Amino acid sequence: MTPINAQWRLAARPVGLPKRSDWEYVEEPAPEPSDARFRVQLEYLSLDPAMRGWMNEGRSYMPPVGIGEVMRAGGIGRVVDSRHEDYAVGEQVSGVFGVQRFSISDGTGVTKIDTTLAPAPVYLGVLGMTGLTAYFGLLDIGRPEPGQTVVVSGAAGAVGSVVGQIARIKGCRVVGITGGPEKCEWITEELGFDAAIDYKRGDLRAQLREYTPDGVDVYFDNVGGETLDEVLRRLARGARVVLCGAISQYNAEQPPRGPANYIQLVVMRASMTGFLVFDFARRYPEGVAQLAQWLQSGELRSREDVVSGDLDKFPEVFLMLFRGENTGKLILQLTEDEG
Amino acid sequence: MTPINAQWRLAARPVGLPKRSDWEYVEEPAPEPSDARFRVQLEYLSLDPAMRGWMNEGRSYMPPVGIGEVMRAGGIGRVVDSRHEDYAVGEQVSGVFGVQRFSISDGTGVTKIDTTLAPAPVYLGVLGMTGLTAYFGLLDIGRPEPGQTVVVSGAAGAVGSVVGQIARIKGCRVVGITGGPEKCEWITEELGFDAAIDYKRGDLRAQLREYTPDGVDVYFDNVGGETLDEVLRRLARGARVVLCGAISQYNAEQPPRGPANYIQLVVMRASMTGFLVFDFARRYPEGVAQLAQWLQSGELRSREDVVSGDLDKFPEVFLMLFRGENTGKLILQLTEDEG
Repeated sequence: MTPINAQWRLAARPVGLPKRSDWEYVEEPAPEPSDARFRVQLEYLSLDPAMRGWMNEGRSYMPPVGIGEVMRAGGIGRVVDSRHEDYAVGEQVSGVFGVQRFSISDGTGVTKIDTTLAPAPVYLGVLGMTGLTAYFGLLDIGRPEPGQTVVVSGAAGAVGSVVGQIARIKGCRVVGITGGPEKCEWITEELGFDAAIDYKRGDLRAQLREYTPDGVDVYFDNVGGETLDEVLRRLARGARVVLCGAISQYNAEQPPRGPANYIQLVVMRASMTGFLVFDFARRYPEGVAQLAQWLQSGELRSREDVVSGDLDKFPEVFLMLFRGENTGKLILQLTEDEG
Repeated sequence: MTPINAQWRLAARPVGLPKRSDWEYVEEPAPEPSDARFRVQLEYLSLDPAMRGWMNEGRSYMPPVGIGEVMRAGGIGRVVDSRHEDYAVGEQVSGVFGVQRFSISDGTGVTKIDTTLAPAPVYLGVLGMTGLTAYFGLLDIGRPEPGQTVVVSGAAGAVGSVVGQIARIKGCRVVGITGGPEKCEWITEELGFDAAIDYKRGDLRAQLREYTPDGVDVYFDNVGGETLDEVLRRLARGARVVLCGAISQYNAEQPPRGPANYIQLVVMRASMTGFLVFDFARRYPEGVAQLAQWLQSGELRSREDVVSGDLDKFPEVFLMLFRGENTGKLILQLTEDEG
């Protein structure tokens, strides 16, 4: 019996915050895998701020999702049908399978996961692109030294929460910027950050001054906007600003806000460097091995914010990212009630 | 007979473009040098955009000039009176002597110059801080490779004109951004830049697209503002943006404009790094030796825009910098008609 596939296809280039109508929900028979391909039934969808960027037209680090194409997303699923000699029915795999129930793959960019080591969602979090982004971004671009002050924004988010923990493991003083008392408590009490700054409390400048008395040696930026600008005022001499993202700007309808205080980079002989985790692909095994070891020793905690539901829920769950509603890695776990 | 000293002292923190009344012109008897000091009669004053920053209050890379203090400036003069065993009357010296006729020095930060090798003004230009700023900023921070595209703004200015020539010597394709046809012609015809972009002609974006078909590998920024923002759109993968200054913003009465396109640093895995030449002090001899060698071989040209006049003319000559009226290093040569 041919299963029914469900997909979210991009229907329009969003203006500002995406609306449900920017995608189209389509159901149709799932295609059969041809030779050297296999069919995956998706179980977990990775929901990431970067996906918002893929919806835009124009030059970026990868081509935009085309209108009418399945929305791009990472995910984990199970091989349910295979004509590929390396993938057997029943194996769990991680890859960029798109926002859909079933995906056909030739194995490109696909990795098998071992859920005897960690539950599947962790492979979208600490042991996936999220953890690797934190690992290479902080250590290779930020180059923190023991005793230095590391500030991370989006500190209760998927990447930020891992960045702060790695910085703590490396002997840094870690200050996280996040929104609301629960998240502040989580990063300090559970994750071992030295301090939390609640941007929703206002007066970011005064809070930064209080918690970074010696300035900021490394700033890992996930949010951009006012937060980036205020941290630039606090840079220590020789500071490194790691640019990972700018979630505060992704839905801006006006041109994004530039960091007006960037000239502090001159005053403090500091740098601001962007990076993409894909450039470290050859070193993924090193990163995963180290992250797994920290996870096993208990030094590093993984937290996934798993929302269960039908694929139909994708737009509303995705938008949680931009409302700051997730803590840790946001994942949509697909329930079995479809078709 | 005690000579009369004339000084420009800072009288007010300027709002926007400095006015003559932001300084006070004072004449009084020149003090005698005490033990281990010498008196310099200033002959040439170095006029630099950075001086505008020194007039502002607040944290920066060096303390601001205090209200009532002599305006800070580099210069060249002749020792006219000495109680210092290392400095003899008649020697020519370069140092931060201030905007005045006579200065007392203990030798800190002072270097003797040899005008048999090059005329005195060259020691404020290519063989001074100007040349060293270009040398270390381009080569150490920008790290251009042969065949890469180097763009420099303020390209007909003191630092920019040297940056472009060093990039040319290093085998790069060099594009200068400057204002007006004369400056464009000078940098291409006389200095050997591959192309010139005239920002006064408008449509900077289209001009950049035309002259940097393969993108920009190194951008040496002297101006900030719209120019920085437009060049960010043209970055090549792995590009280095060297932040030297932001002359377009120094007199802004509004908060400075941040580079809204900074997120291109992520897309292109690029960096933006500020630097100050003072951090390279231990390597000045290396820089001066290399610059002098290029100067002697004719590969590098020095151009000083020397305005002669009494010290009284300082404010108006200084402001030429912000009107784009100088070509090459702006210097006020003090005439002998005072006191």
